[in-house]
Order: sequence, then C-alpha cells, then structure tokens
Amino acid sequence: MRALVNGREDDCIDPMDRGLHYGDGLFETMAVQGGGVRFLDWHLERLADGAARLAIPLPEPGTLRAEIGAVAAADRGIIKLILTRGAGERGYRPPLHPVPTRLLFRLPWPAPAAPTGGVRVGWCRTRLGRNPRLAGIKHLNRLEQVLARAEWDDADMAEALMMDDRDRAIGGTQTNLFARMAGRWTTPVLDQCGVAGVMRRAFMSWAAARGEPVIERELPAAELAGATALLLTNAIIGAWPVCELDGRALPVDPVAAEFNGWVLRQ
Amino acid sequence: MRALVNGREDDCIDPMDRGLHYGDGLFETMAVQGGGVRFLDWHLERLADGAARLAIPLPEPGTLRAEIGAVAAADRGIIKLILTRGAGERGYRPPLHPVPTRLLFRLPWPAPAAPTGGVRVGWCRTRLGRNPRLAGIKHLNRLEQVLARAEWDDADMAEALMMDDRDRAIGGTQTNLFARMAGRWTTPVLDQCGVAGVMRRAFMSWAAARGEPVIERELPAAELAGATALLLTNAIIGAWPVCELDGRALPVDPVAAEFNGWVLRQ
Repeated sequence: MRALVNGREDDCIDPMDRGLHYGDGLFETMAVQGGGVRFLDWHLERLADGAARLAIPLPEPGTLRAEIGAVAAADRGIIKLILTRGAGERGYRPPLHPVPTRLLFRLPWPAPAAPTGGVRVGWCRTRLGRNPRLAGIKHLNRLEQVLARAEWDDADMAEALMMDDRDRAIGGTQTNLFARMAGRWTTPVLDQCGVAGVMRRAFMSWAAARGEPVIERELPAAELAGATALLLTNAIIGAWPVCELDGRALPVDPVAAEFNGWVLRQ
Repeated sequence: MRALVNGREDDCIDPMDRGLHYGDGLFETMAVQGGGVRFLDWHLERLADGAARLAIPLPEPGTLRAEIGAVAAADRGIIKLILTRGAGERGYRPPLHPVPTRLLFRLPWPAPAAPTGGVRVGWCRTRLGRNPRLAGIKHLNRLEQVLARAEWDDADMAEALMMDDRDRAIGGTQTNLFARMAGRWTTPVLDQCGVAGVMRRAFMSWAAARGEPVIERELPAAELAGATALLLTNAIIGAWPVCELDGRALPVDPVAAEFNGWVLRQ
C-alpha cells in the first residue's frame, strides 16, 4: 500500500531501516474525525516523549502537522504514523547523526460498530516483560502483543487482558484498562510495561474534570475479582465497557457512553 | 542498499511489513568463510526454532540455502538474513495465511581485527526484560540492545555486559558470555531473556568434545567477581577474551585462541 514516506507518496522503504532491523522507532495510531485528527496534540506529545527517551530526532513539528493534515482530509479514518531512527549500518549502535524515517498511512475506519452491550474478555497466557526504559511509550517492539493476540480466534471476543510476570494486570493487547474498585476508577501504573494510551489520558482528564480523579497504581490481576465495572480504551474505539471477565458477568457502566459522547465532540 | 527480497534483487520493502510495524520476525547474522557460510546448519536450525515459536512459516529450506549460497559467493563477508511475517492489515493479530518476507543482505567483513589482548568490558545500565516466550530466539525486538549500545562511545570498548532485572548476568549487547568459575566454564541459562547464539552453541559443543562440558545456569552478576576468565562469543567474532571487567584485570585465557583456530577450520 502507498504511504507518505518522508513527505513523498511512496510504496517502498529502505531494507536497511532500523525500524525493520531492531524495531528502533515509535508509532501513533490516530482517529480522523470530521476531517481533523482527534487529540492530535496529545499524540504528538507522546511521540515527542518517546523520541526523547529513545534519542530519535523529532521531525519539525510544522512539517509533521502539515503532512498529517494532508493525509487526514476525509471525514473518518485512521492515520498511522511511524517514526524510526532511519537506515543505518549493521549493528545495534545508533548512528551518531541519524536521519529518521517518518511514515504516514491512511487506513480505513473499522467497519464493525462499537459493542454497546459491552465486550467479553479473558486473560492472555502471554505475559508482558518489564523494562522501565521502554514502559509507557509506543515503540515498535510489539512481539508480546502479537503473540498475545494470536491466542484467540473468536470473532465474538474483541480483546483480552494481559498481566506482567508478577501477576499485575496491565491492560488489553491494544487497550488500556480501567477498573471501578470500591467506587473509584483505578488504572494500572505503566512504569514497568504497557503503553500509556492517548485515550487513557483523555479518560483520566475527563474523569478528573468531573471530580472523579482516576487512581493510578499497581493492580494485581486477582483484585479485578472485586471490580464492579471495567472499561477498555484506545485512540480508535474510545471506551468499551466490559460485560464479562473470565466468565463473570459485569454491569455495563453508563460512564462509557457518556465518555464516548464527549470524545465524539472533540 | 540492495538486498535479495524474496529472491529478487531489490532496494525496497513494503511499508506495511509487520517486521517494521511490530518487529514481527527473526534474523540471523552469518559469517562467510572461504565462500561458504560458517555453521549454516545451526543458523538455519535456530531460525526454524524461532519461526516455530512465532508461528511464522519457514521458506522452503532448498530455496533459502540456494539464495544464501548465491549471496555468499565471496571469500569473506557477513550475510544478514531477516524473515518477517510479511505485510498485513493494521492490528497485532497475525494474518491467518501470512506470506513471509525474507531478506538477505551482503555486508562487509568488519575491518578491525580481533583484539588479541582481550577486550575491556563494563556493565550497561539498560536491563533486559524477561519473557520466556521470546527468550533465546533472535527476534526483531531489539530496542533494549539499541539503548544499551548507545550508552558508551569509547572506541576502545568493544562490548559491554547486560543484566536482567534480577541482577543476573545475561551476556553482552551482541555477544554471549562464558565465565570460568571454580575451574569450569559457565554460561547464563537463556530461558528468560537473551539470544542463544550460534557461536555459543559452537563453543559449548567444542568444549564438551574436549571433555570440558560448559555449565549452563543462572549467573548472578555479583558472582563474576569470582571468575578467573571471561569470554564473549558471537557468530562473527568467534570468541573474544575479556582482559578487564569493570576495572578488574583478568588473564587472557588461551582457550579463546584455540577455539578461534578451530572456528577458522570450519
């Protein structure tokens, strides 16, 4: 498929790109809504955070925004951005003066509508390894998610949850997790693994503005037995309520619909 | 640079390749010696092991060997092979019928000669996260190694060691580690992280044939204070003796030169 490669329509990337060789890069998956990109500033902030942590030079913000704007010219869709450290010689050592590669893809909006009755979820066997240096950012090393997502083939099951190696709940394979515990929304802290999603930030910001700040802490998976509601969020879906965890029915919290309404007005 | 992409000379890969998007693939770095690839069978065995564990279909072995043979037609060099799950739609879920991408690169032999006096090494701050599902295989998720290798810029320091998050020594950023402990060669077990190198296998096989089987076990980094010699191995360098660990001088073990002589006769 064609992509915008460093600002030019192309269907080709350099086989020596470090994004391919080492997953040496970052990505963002963004929703186009009414011709604009939803939460664009927050996507660019997370990208900048990841680029700083990996020491990948960031493209000029004006250039990036202009290119995203050009790709976004439609009512509804997904834009995927990849930023890599660019092509390099053999070896892990990053080039002294990297020339990053930026890619923009226009992808169709998912056809299936959000499951208003909630999603059923279970647990993946694949665990998330922990590494504070990579935790939270949306880097290109995603084999754990690929292995986890390969665990089920049930069209009726939209997502599944993952733990780290210490039995902490971290989130879904492609979503962040919020659990209502003793009346308070609680979300796993992501200082060891996981991706700090833009929609996670949006939910936390929205909830705080309503006077219900979200608690961010370590969340042992076993504690979810005491949750009275669960939500899954990502930049595309907004919030999905969970109607069943591992066979246990959960009430669909009306907060999801309220939040999704707010997201659609952004 | 030009590569052999699915058997055809090309300088282009599909921007939707899952190797780029998720690091969803494997690689091998092989030494060309006298027009042939050293330890080719073992490289292909490790590739097959990794492909089975990631459920990536393996190219027909005859095809792969023929292509490697074509690229290897020179006296000295490096061949890098990448095998990815191929292009796919957006999303972590692997395609039901993946069409893998195979890439072969011909790269120059490293110019600097092996340090016969041994290499100085220290410890990287970057730790290796643990995940048994990915341990041992040579997959494309290598950001930890990239971050570790970015920690030093001393041309005199060829390699540095890495621990996991439990202070176990695992190996160098691009090498496996052997420590002589109480007279026996000992190497970290790689069931949690690390890459089980082909030259590691070669050293273990060579040592066993000499009646000195290598002990494979968890190796707390602190125990290396008691090591009387250290070796680092990989498919290109063979074995490098370590002459200094974190400022402590170590004698260069003659085993390295003996082993390297044997490697050159393979």
